[in-house]
Amino acid sequence: MPFPIYIDRTGFPGRENGKQTALSGGFPTVFPNLSGGSSAEQFNTIIRRFFMYLGRIVAAGMTAKGKPVAAYRVSSRSFPNRTANLVGETISIIPRKGFESDLSRNPYIAYNCVRLCGTTAVATNGSHTDPIVEKLMAGMNLRDAFTLSLLAMDYEHDSLDTPRIAAAVDAKNGQGALGIVRKDAVLVNVFDLEPGKLRYLSTYVRNTPSADQVDTGFDAACGACACAYVIGQGVFAEFENPVCSAAAVWTGEGYHLAVQDA
Amino acid sequence: MPFPIYIDRTGFPGRENGKQTALSGGFPTVFPNLSGGSSAEQFNTIIRRFFMYLGRIVAAGMTAKGKPVAAYRVSSRSFPNRTANLVGETISIIPRKGFESDLSRNPYIAYNCVRLCGTTAVATNGSHTDPIVEKLMAGMNLRDAFTLSLLAMDYEHDSLDTPRIAAAVDAKNGQGALGIVRKDAVLVNVFDLEPGKLRYLSTYVRNTPSADQVDTGFDAACGACACAYVIGQGVFAEFENPVCSAAAVWTGEGYHLAVQDA
Amino acid sequence: MPFPIYIDRTGFPGRENGKQTALSGGFPTVFPNLSGGSSAEQFNTIIRRFFMYLGRIVAAGMTAKGKPVAAYRVSSRSFPNRTANLVGETISIIPRKGFESDLSRNPYIAYNCVRLCGTTAVATNGSHTDPIVEKLMAGMNLRDAFTLSLLAMDYEHDSLDTPRIAAAVDAKNGQGALGIVRKDAVLVNVFDLEPGKLRYLSTYVRNTPSADQVDTGFDAACGACACAYVIGQGVFAEFENPVCSAAAVWTGEGYHLAVQDA
Amino acid sequence: MPFPIYIDRTGFPGRENGKQTALSGGFPTVFPNLSGGSSAEQFNTIIRRFFMYLGRIVAAGMTAKGKPVAAYRVSSRSFPNRTANLVGETISIIPRKGFESDLSRNPYIAYNCVRLCGTTAVATNGSHTDPIVEKLMAGMNLRDAFTLSLLAMDYEHDSLDTPRIAAAVDAKNGQGALGIVRKDAVLVNVFDLEPGKLRYLSTYVRNTPSADQVDTGFDAACGACACAYVIGQGVFAEFENPVCSAAAVWTGEGYHLAVQDA
Repeated sequence: MPFPIYIDRTGFPGRENGKQTALSGGFPTVFPNLSGGSSAEQFNTIIRRFFMYLGRIVAAGMTAKGKPVAAYRVSSRSFPNRTANLVGETISIIPRKGFESDLSRNPYIAYNCVRLCGTTAVATNGSHTDPIVEKLMAGMNLRDAFTLSLLAMDYEHDSLDTPRIAAAVDAKNGQGALGIVRKDAVLVNVFDLEPGKLRYLSTYVRNTPSADQVDTGFDAACGACACAYVIGQGVFAEFENPVCSAAAVWTGEGYHLAVQDA
Repeated sequence: MPFPIYIDRTGFPGRENGKQTALSGGFPTVFPNLSGGSSAEQFNTIIRRFFMYLGRIVAAGMTAKGKPVAAYRVSSRSFPNRTANLVGETISIIPRKGFESDLSRNPYIAYNCVRLCGTTAVATNGSHTDPIVEKLMAGMNLRDAFTLSLLAMDYEHDSLDTPRIAAAVDAKNGQGALGIVRKDAVLVNVFDLEPGKLRYLSTYVRNTPSADQVDTGFDAACGACACAYVIGQGVFAEFENPVCSAAAVWTGEGYHLAVQDA
Repeated sequence: MPFPIYIDRTGFPGRENGKQTALSGGFPTVFPNLSGGSSAEQFNTIIRRFFMYLGRIVAAGMTAKGKPVAAYRVSSRSFPNRTANLVGETISIIPRKGFESDLSRNPYIAYNCVRLCGTTAVATNGSHTDPIVEKLMAGMNLRDAFTLSLLAMDYEHDSLDTPRIAAAVDAKNGQGALGIVRKDAVLVNVFDLEPGKLRYLSTYVRNTPSADQVDTGFDAACGACACAYVIGQGVFAEFENPVCSAAAVWTGEGYHLAVQDA
Repeated sequence: MPFPIYIDRTGFPGRENGKQTALSGGFPTVFPNLSGGSSAEQFNTIIRRFFMYLGRIVAAGMTAKGKPVAAYRVSSRSFPNRTANLVGETISIIPRKGFESDLSRNPYIAYNCVRLCGTTAVATNGSHTDPIVEKLMAGMNLRDAFTLSLLAMDYEHDSLDTPRIAAAVDAKNGQGALGIVRKDAVLVNVFDLEPGKLRYLSTYVRNTPSADQVDTGFDAACGACACAYVIGQGVFAEFENPVCSAAAVWTGEGYHLAVQDA
């Protein structure tokens, strides 16, 4: 069901007269709304930008050999000075060296993005990683832990109403989960993982959990390979502004964790 | 993203070796799994059945003249002896005359399916109508009232794991909502109502809130017209086994409620 | 912290000029508010009534020999024609013989009051028994299953804003739980069971989970004994208007279920 | 209902053989468990310590002249180098000057502790301030916003299983709320504010919302007065280890916010 998306002069989608438009329900038909005339070239640039910049991305899938993988990629136009930091079994997003003072202004920019709970790995774009993992530890299933945490913590009340997104894989039962809370929706989906398929979900544009949002040639056998993959390989090569990534790859006995700067 | 759906010998979709398969994520590719060979004719029958029988259906939309409408239709292969009963501002599903004793065996077959809360009308397929409406009365917004109630009350633990579904319209802000809790998902979406469009969501097959599931020629100006519409007009004419329906149509000052047996 | 409770001419507590007063926070100081003068005798009658009629009661505890027990007792001034009905592993409250037609007027008067989930027995005063048990089945812990279900289903919107209450015991870890949702509170408490102690919680007056609300001489070794106990023995002998009861008593291998009319 | 509390050699309550004991349900009877004999003097020291150190404290009440007040006090044995920082309409807890590097090790030590939403002021001991306020903004009532946020974010999984606590006052309807999530409980209570009474709730010992936990001579007419009050006046004078405080006092038109170091 196509619907109009207005684009402002900076090429950023989803704003009509300064008001954020809900970006829901799949691939939109784009009606550029530029003052001063819109050439075909301008139009194509907009389209390209529109589909390329997805914001933060989470992914849940399986390698070609059937190893569950959860991953997270920061894409950012505004904050390229972030890095993923691995300590023990937890990966956090923090400011890069030289930008530590950003934390004093806003402590919420640092958060755990990947954590483990037994055979389950969770990857998210914010501080909801912790309640999700802690509910899993308490016995709650993936669907309920995602839904309850996203419902309660809600989208971020920043200027873009940035959604919270989450992905998880469970090596015990071969299931994955993707979830998002947007201003206009709470969507959580659990599914069976399939070898070679990596489903993804992003904060903008591709922001509905769907079997359509998938890389079908996924084959990254180690943590570092998975990090590199979501930064610049497969369908992820098309997505703009990679900053850093984090991944958990099941080894058969536990998760191998890795991080990478773009 | 196509995926296989196994169909048993009765033509009922979604069961593989007696195990219910999750019917998630849009229109599936169907691989019939009949013992004894599958002729083209058999196949076509299956496809037709598959897409025709959706189970219970809820709908949220607007008449061509911009009046918000919420509706509910019971479709049933197993329980055709149900009727919708209007008392005051509440519509309930109850056994038809002569089948009242069904209640003694299972009181849960009777439930409020349509209730009002100020400018909002809610339609659902079960006892979650009440908590949703009561949370709206307490000030909760549509998205949260749907998500919390569906998360807590969950799918029905019957032999089909029947999902709970819900629809609502709010005449004050022109918004609608559709929500479902399935064994594998919690999906709640709020959207702007558009004249002449009636979105729907069903317990089986069309069980993901989506802008694709819409009747675009909806024009029922009264409660009775809306009831008749979801029983047998527009896209609803294709859906099998209608039993009864209930609808709430905004009049400009309040909701006009109506019921109909198929 | 004492606070005034106004009592109307029928002796029913908690109503001031027809408005229900929240009965929260322990034992109140009572200020009778009778028109036409209040003699000492009248006053005493009121006090006695006040503390005696607790409405529905749930209980969680252990027999003197350390067997976990969950129980439910219906007390009612308005609806004495209810009975507890045991079928398989579920106990329901239904109308007594001759009053089945009550169901046609209000199907919500019939509900499952006791259900089992492995080593856990749950007893409640309404339809929240089912979501609580189903969440336990899905792996959720007692505290969260109680809180989520009570939060979502909320107090009953009848003329008394009757709270929903729930009790549970788990033979595996020796823990019990009591919970209530009132118009002014959500209170859920998990605790270690102790031999010979039966904690209780009621819809009115004793409506805060507390270690003070306990029978310390509890010793009912079978389902029928436990049913009889909460109807008329120990502290329960003081509580007015018993109608029927239901109980689940751990045997070491499973729960022994029983029901009794008062 | 008294119950034993074991105290270890450091005088810290609630640990039996290294295991944290749930501190629930009012004033315990204390059984010291010191190796090497326990003199009366030792015993008294323990009792005094026990009742004095409550951890973090939130409060909700009214000045003698009927102005609603919400306040927060940090008490800490381990982290005295914290301060409350007021920026615009938000108060945050952050490291004191010279201790900013604590943030790099653990960003969760910085959080918003007081925020406003119209006529409502909220004070908490952690990052749940934000979801509570955002749910209030979305129309949710105090009871549900507290319960949902506490249920989802849960107690802190540190070495003490530190509970999350929250207080709020609403000048529009004269109501207050106190809530806590402990490992063994979720307890949320809404109540009518009364002039001169300030109810409080702490992470340890006084950790059950109750009309008993109240300062009945509260009379702080400005933000700074309220900050000073919860640091060292009234009942708060007895509580050990104050570090800093934050308060919101209703002026009739809005809230006056203030902070203070102890």
